[in-house]
Amino acid sequence: MKLTILGCYSATPRAFTNPTAQVLDVKGNLFLIDCGEGTQVQLRKFKIKFSRIKHVFVSHLHGDHFFGLIGLISTFRLLGREAALHVYGPKGIKEVILLQLKLGNSYGGYELIFHELVSKESELIFEDDKVSVYTIPLVHRVYTNGFLFKEKLGERKLDINAVLNYNIEQCDYRNIKLGKDVVNIKGVLIKNALISSDPEPPKSYAFCSDTKYTETIIPIIKEVTALYHESTFLEEHAHLCKKTKHSTAKEAATIALKANVDKLILGHFSTRYGTIKCFKEEAKEVFNKVLLADDGKEFEF
Amino acid sequence: MKLTILGCYSATPRAFTNPTAQVLDVKGNLFLIDCGEGTQVQLRKFKIKFSRIKHVFVSHLHGDHFFGLIGLISTFRLLGREAALHVYGPKGIKEVILLQLKLGNSYGGYELIFHELVSKESELIFEDDKVSVYTIPLVHRVYTNGFLFKEKLGERKLDINAVLNYNIEQCDYRNIKLGKDVVNIKGVLIKNALISSDPEPPKSYAFCSDTKYTETIIPIIKEVTALYHESTFLEEHAHLCKKTKHSTAKEAATIALKANVDKLILGHFSTRYGTIKCFKEEAKEVFNKVLLADDGKEFEF
Repeated sequence: MKLTILGCYSATPRAFTNPTAQVLDVKGNLFLIDCGEGTQVQLRKFKIKFSRIKHVFVSHLHGDHFFGLIGLISTFRLLGREAALHVYGPKGIKEVILLQLKLGNSYGGYELIFHELVSKESELIFEDDKVSVYTIPLVHRVYTNGFLFKEKLGERKLDINAVLNYNIEQCDYRNIKLGKDVVNIKGVLIKNALISSDPEPPKSYAFCSDTKYTETIIPIIKEVTALYHESTFLEEHAHLCKKTKHSTAKEAATIALKANVDKLILGHFSTRYGTIKCFKEEAKEVFNKVLLADDGKEFEF
Repeated sequence: MKLTILGCYSATPRAFTNPTAQVLDVKGNLFLIDCGEGTQVQLRKFKIKFSRIKHVFVSHLHGDHFFGLIGLISTFRLLGREAALHVYGPKGIKEVILLQLKLGNSYGGYELIFHELVSKESELIFEDDKVSVYTIPLVHRVYTNGFLFKEKLGERKLDINAVLNYNIEQCDYRNIKLGKDVVNIKGVLIKNALISSDPEPPKSYAFCSDTKYTETIIPIIKEVTALYHESTFLEEHAHLCKKTKHSTAKEAATIALKANVDKLILGHFSTRYGTIKCFKEEAKEVFNKVLLADDGKEFEF
């Protein structure tokens, strides 16, 4: 998995930072997560091909997470896109996008498929042979979901030296990768374990923004490879978290600790702080493996 | 009048150019004209105070002219704005803005006053003691208006030396500026023409984007101080103008010539051209006083 942060700052606009948007590459499939204003320009900046994005997941309908979606959808049409685009987001997202396309007389060109979310329970919303995507119900001022991306177990890894030693024909390689025992050119049955090794353990990524501190998400995100959890404020502004239903860096770290995740990525920083280092320092007091998101930063896991 | 170009490129997004938005300063009143995606960031970049913008004029509901409006409106609220904001634009603009505020549960804070436009004739849509604003019906793929900003005739200029020579009291200065004759301390009537001079001739600015070549606008923009006219394409792509209802640089220049304007500012450049100089070269073959808009450029007239 490769995660590219297009924007990770909270709503107040600045000349040099961007609202929430990120691209997750799961074995070559690109998923766009949230789409704040200016996302299409950020995609251009980081040379991510528009045509590779087939699925957009929108956490909630606050502007800093979705005002860039209509621009992206319009641009896709302008550039002659033909592939369908799937949009997952809270109920209402379809109406507002279609209304804007209607007013601009900008329908058509490619299929736009909306998957409107209303459930308050975690649910499977996308699945193919490589990955499953589940919602993570969050607690914010409006209906909000995080998203959990779980790779599926890959194929077993062929031990090419062993395969050659056992005189196995090439036409059997596929079966070996699928875990089957095979018969070699001398008619001997060769156990799969002798000629292949376990696949990479599947990775998982949980995106949790925006939300107040809520332990209800812990069973869903348990032991993920990477957790992106919002930390809009520091503890010194914990009272603002209460009011706005956001989290502090310490709270994000507490969730990471309790969910026993492999690493925590902090983001959705309020622009009131001169530097974002302070978020890492605060979180590290609770949980050790803390990384800071930043616009343009890439994470591989 | 001072015009600041925040963005002047057509819809295709790029990392380093912006869609249409500009700020016109008329004697200290700021008017925002169009509001493409990213306008709030451009305003920040060029240090234009959000609170000074009280009127937004939207030409049409294509994304590159209005997808930044909802972000700006939301940000105003977030920053605690209290002053009313007037929005002038095609019918439908109110519905789409209010729907987004409703979905984000982001109503209130300050008054949002919509002036929806439907007329196909030029009409007066705003007036105060300094300026009048008229629509300029344009011809594009959707209902579109340009906007004509006409300064009102200012006060007469006091000739301070003459005033002192004629022994006129300070309490009469205001009357002199208003064009009245006054009586001096010796009881002599002094003719206004002796103690004041004509005010600066009022300036005018016409914004015409997006539109195909249409001579119907000429009587409305006749002899303006500055005409901003779109020139999406060059003559070599005139066939694309027909299809998309845009203008070439030559067509913009022809309008400028026929309307006898003082100067022409070209903008809304298609991003297909390596440089924008070619627009000026083409236009200058028809009309001499041609300027090129560019993001961040200022024009005073």
